[in-house]
Amino acid sequence: MHTFYQADFNNTFLSEEEAAHCTKVLRLSEGELIHLVNGAGRRAKATLVQIQTRNVKFSIIEESQDQKRPYEIHMLISPTRKLERNEWMVEKMVEVGVDAIHFIKTEHSHRESFDRVTNLERLQKIAIAAMKQSNQSWLPSITNRLRFEDIINKWPEGERFIAYVANEEQNTHLVRLARTHTPTYVLIGPEGDFSVHEIQSAIGAGWRSVSLGSTRLRTETAAFVACHSVHLANL
Amino acid sequence: MHTFYQADFNNTFLSEEEAAHCTKVLRLSEGELIHLVNGAGRRAKATLVQIQTRNVKFSIIEESQDQKRPYEIHMLISPTRKLERNEWMVEKMVEVGVDAIHFIKTEHSHRESFDRVTNLERLQKIAIAAMKQSNQSWLPSITNRLRFEDIINKWPEGERFIAYVANEEQNTHLVRLARTHTPTYVLIGPEGDFSVHEIQSAIGAGWRSVSLGSTRLRTETAAFVACHSVHLANL
Repeated sequence: MHTFYQADFNNTFLSEEEAAHCTKVLRLSEGELIHLVNGAGRRAKATLVQIQTRNVKFSIIEESQDQKRPYEIHMLISPTRKLERNEWMVEKMVEVGVDAIHFIKTEHSHRESFDRVTNLERLQKIAIAAMKQSNQSWLPSITNRLRFEDIINKWPEGERFIAYVANEEQNTHLVRLARTHTPTYVLIGPEGDFSVHEIQSAIGAGWRSVSLGSTRLRTETAAFVACHSVHLANL
Repeated sequence: MHTFYQADFNNTFLSEEEAAHCTKVLRLSEGELIHLVNGAGRRAKATLVQIQTRNVKFSIIEESQDQKRPYEIHMLISPTRKLERNEWMVEKMVEVGVDAIHFIKTEHSHRESFDRVTNLERLQKIAIAAMKQSNQSWLPSITNRLRFEDIINKWPEGERFIAYVANEEQNTHLVRLARTHTPTYVLIGPEGDFSVHEIQSAIGAGWRSVSLGSTRLRTETAAFVACHSVHLANL
């Protein structure tokens, strides 16, 4: 059964994009059953009751609510310059599960490419597709334009980690330090790493430095590895 | 300092591809220092002693040998139909570290795309780039055209796991089952999953079924998650 994203189940017409997918790609017919997810844990089984090119009406048969994971993962990332690497990163983190992706500007961030590689409309579409693909019903929030100095004093109630390249060997791996059932925040630096000043500020504000393994990882790989490590720490 | 791949240190000229990268992209000059890795754990520091467009000669100053990890990871994967997803998968597994990637044909493998998406020459280049990028000196072997039925009775000395979608919830996560310091083999199925017959044959031959987490993963994501999980089990 095919799954569609419908933010509001009270609106019984699929969004323009999902309707086009339903009629032009999947070529579904009236009477067929579909799944709906709203991005906030709600699922529904529905029947397609009326199909026109741009209007696809459904009727809900049954609804259910998925529980949230007992821990939240917030990834705070200085994005790579390459659009496709950033998109891949969002897709993969959503596949394994992530609650929030914040794109941050750091001293060594590439300013010219920042807005292009963190195009929220585009990343939102990728996140929706990955949520459906991986059979999940929760959609992460994605934000950009956060500044490093504005975030390091936030979320004192959670476990906060910073991964950076310098002195990597001296740090303990995130999977060992992450606590179970705790909101977890992980800072991932840009291609040129965090500045010494940023690392010192974060550690001064209570962020703990962690290792992500013995090899030198690209930004997008580091983010995925960190997100996956928090899941494994919660097994 | 820039790193170049040089399979044989006795040959004091860079390969054509690495020479082009050295002169046209990086525009290095005679007298500059470079790093060399041979893909078999050997590293060298060298000086560029002569540069012409297609001939780049170096002179080695010092050599060293990296130890192998105390465990081997062999990934046996039925590839996706999408070339770029397969390439991404190879790049990411090499970044975190992998010893061998075997592409296998299964009942539900997409036969028409198999040779295209497992183009060894192309994947080898990606693996070399990822090895250099991640500051490693070991290059994994990459093979294709293995058949499922030819592999399930191999490697009885190692720990052998099969990850599949059916009954995912009943299985224990790979990170819990993988043993430390043991050669580990993980089978990853195609988009349509392994057939029931394949799963039964593998389990009959001693492969253990494992979970890779609670969400439904694409083939390339499953492979990376499995590879990373073995690393974390060895921490």
